[in-house]
Amino acid sequence: MNSFFRIDKESLITKLNKMKNEYLNIKKRKLKLDMSRGKPSSDQLYLSEKILNCIDDKILNDYREKSGIDIRNYGCLEGLPEARSIMAGFIGCEPNDVIIGGNSSLSMMHDVLTHFFVKGVNGCKPWSNKMVKFLCPSPGYDRHFKLCEYFGIDMIQIKMLKNGPDMNQVIDLSENDEKIKGIWCVPKFSNPQGIVYSEETVDKFSRLKPAAKDFRIFWDNAYSVHELGNKKIEIPNIFKKCRETNNENLVIAFCSTSKITFAGGGISAIGCRKSNFKEIKDYYSFKTIGFDKINQLRHIVFLENKVSNHMNKHSFILKPKFDLIINSFKKNFEENPIIEWTEPQGGYFISVQTFGSARRIVDLCAEAGLIITPAGAAFPYGDDHEDSNIRIAPSNPNIEELKAAVEIFCLCSKISAAEKILESVFRRSNSNTI
Amino acid sequence: MNSFFRIDKESLITKLNKMKNEYLNIKKRKLKLDMSRGKPSSDQLYLSEKILNCIDDKILNDYREKSGIDIRNYGCLEGLPEARSIMAGFIGCEPNDVIIGGNSSLSMMHDVLTHFFVKGVNGCKPWSNKMVKFLCPSPGYDRHFKLCEYFGIDMIQIKMLKNGPDMNQVIDLSENDEKIKGIWCVPKFSNPQGIVYSEETVDKFSRLKPAAKDFRIFWDNAYSVHELGNKKIEIPNIFKKCRETNNENLVIAFCSTSKITFAGGGISAIGCRKSNFKEIKDYYSFKTIGFDKINQLRHIVFLENKVSNHMNKHSFILKPKFDLIINSFKKNFEENPIIEWTEPQGGYFISVQTFGSARRIVDLCAEAGLIITPAGAAFPYGDDHEDSNIRIAPSNPNIEELKAAVEIFCLCSKISAAEKILESVFRRSNSNTI
Repeated sequence: MNSFFRIDKESLITKLNKMKNEYLNIKKRKLKLDMSRGKPSSDQLYLSEKILNCIDDKILNDYREKSGIDIRNYGCLEGLPEARSIMAGFIGCEPNDVIIGGNSSLSMMHDVLTHFFVKGVNGCKPWSNKMVKFLCPSPGYDRHFKLCEYFGIDMIQIKMLKNGPDMNQVIDLSENDEKIKGIWCVPKFSNPQGIVYSEETVDKFSRLKPAAKDFRIFWDNAYSVHELGNKKIEIPNIFKKCRETNNENLVIAFCSTSKITFAGGGISAIGCRKSNFKEIKDYYSFKTIGFDKINQLRHIVFLENKVSNHMNKHSFILKPKFDLIINSFKKNFEENPIIEWTEPQGGYFISVQTFGSARRIVDLCAEAGLIITPAGAAFPYGDDHEDSNIRIAPSNPNIEELKAAVEIFCLCSKISAAEKILESVFRRSNSNTI
Repeated sequence: MNSFFRIDKESLITKLNKMKNEYLNIKKRKLKLDMSRGKPSSDQLYLSEKILNCIDDKILNDYREKSGIDIRNYGCLEGLPEARSIMAGFIGCEPNDVIIGGNSSLSMMHDVLTHFFVKGVNGCKPWSNKMVKFLCPSPGYDRHFKLCEYFGIDMIQIKMLKNGPDMNQVIDLSENDEKIKGIWCVPKFSNPQGIVYSEETVDKFSRLKPAAKDFRIFWDNAYSVHELGNKKIEIPNIFKKCRETNNENLVIAFCSTSKITFAGGGISAIGCRKSNFKEIKDYYSFKTIGFDKINQLRHIVFLENKVSNHMNKHSFILKPKFDLIINSFKKNFEENPIIEWTEPQGGYFISVQTFGSARRIVDLCAEAGLIITPAGAAFPYGDDHEDSNIRIAPSNPNIEELKAAVEIFCLCSKISAAEKILESVFRRSNSNTI
């Protein structure tokens, strides 16, 4: 297909009408497709079926004899030692720096914010008593931003570059405004772009000297072992770097097994050091008598020394889905560059940049039976100034559904682009060719 | 044994010396006994061993086909319908009024307090912005009071009578002070006395007209099916009563299966109506993508239509332990009334009233190798004005351990009483007999 930018008005109108016909035919099929959330597929969930029944009374008794801990009973607030080791591996900290939580790392982020809101950070005034701002690399994870909204935290957009957040902006803002108390980071395979933070980015984070003493980096290492394909990607270890820069209190890291075992039934963890660890553990001692250690033991039995092998199986299922989307984008748009997209080496999303027609594309898709994450969702307050970003989540549909979905998405992208060009470019130039 | 109050000073001194010798001999045995927390025993935990492996892929698939819900994946924030039904049964509300949580109802109480602290109740100002007081029937559950302490909520002690909190005090205070925003209630088999709220008590709660619009009753129905023995005890249904008095927004109820299945691996629930339900569900939609539905399905398979039979097994294990303690108290103290105790028909605790020597008894026990809940723990701020209350938790030790434990407890009670009588009564009266 020739680029829409290189054909004359009449041809573009003809093309648009043809595409609209095609669109109407698709609508008639009354499809129900969903690429809106990073949900694992059934195939992926089956990879962990053995975790359902991997412990019995004998394993429980053996574990109790070895450790002295009856996992069925109350107690052991920070979690089982072997679970702390596994999660420390994902986070890149020491097992003793880890507190294991329930099935949701988002809940743990909420918990830390709650504690800072109610009690403050390390002797500083509670956040409930003052104006609090967060830096939000954008586009980013919508649920991080929703948490900020819940707590009334002001969000400042930070540009995402190809090696991570724009560190000049991060440094400049955080070191000069003591109202800025934190930043959200997904350092490996960022949501939604799949960006991997570079050595330089992490280095700069470790050297940060925020104006606010109670500034913390919320390091959500959600995709630490979630490569697509065989190439393992290492991000620099922020805990090590912060030890070197004597800045260990700066980072609070999070992870979960939601995309390793079961999205709805995994375990989560916080990794942090020094006063952070003490404060957060103290906080949890008010909130609970202990998290679910039975599920922790299931994860120990199922995952210990088997993570890499297990994640390869996920990759085996996921990579063809990403490839399908990206190959389809290449086929459709390499010569007609009306959208741009990321080609992540891991994680759960592809980020698409449109030229100001994100909302239109999402609406067109919805009408044709394909649900996509709402346009703007990946921005604080849903505010994508340029209406350009769309998040694609290829994991949940099967290959057949994905084929149909990407076909719809490409068609809708082209329709909206043709509309836009006809509406703006030709009208403005008042001519028959651009 | 004759009452200490009826013997002369010399005989009491002789008796005390004999008891101290006995005490020294016990100390030499270097026992390690613990009656401090309401932890189920191993025997009780084994009752639920089948829950560990009660679901497999077939059950999962059948459930998905029937309900459309893949329990392994994200979603279904309010919980699986059948789990909501089971928990509604414990709480005494409708399944649609229930939100299922993780393994800790204490966490859910924390969550509700968090939400009220951050956002306020139903349009009222957030609790973070104002002085908040809670009514605390005392002695009560230490962890309720710790939560208040965490949130900086002022606690006001309310006297517990034999049918529940002193409702005159509750009505008088809550209807005249709009700073009072809540009350903690354990309506059935209260912790630590085992008191059951009467019809009149619940009735008065349902008719409460608190000065504060954002006053809520935190109704912790922790022991709803936890009878000791065969006699089933019904408490009046507060939700029904509040519907009749048009006061449905007054109550937020909690329960868990911590003392039904596994103390560390159960499920919890909130039951509430109208604006409470909407607000709390909205709050959770920020905090999590959903709780662990796999554990919910385990509980459905294991408990559905089997609760009563299952709880009888718990009673079969627990009742002899309570009987042992109470019979020992009768034997030791019926004719020498230096302590008083409750004789609960359910729950996890026996409450002991001493005559101002709770601390001394707990210390003596500790030195002899028996850990008891710290004296005062059952009061807000640990403040038992009269130093009189001790909470006994008979569930965790086995019968042999309990025999040793109660022997020590009785001895220490007698030593402290003899000391006290010698120190105060004889000194004051300066005579040889009282």
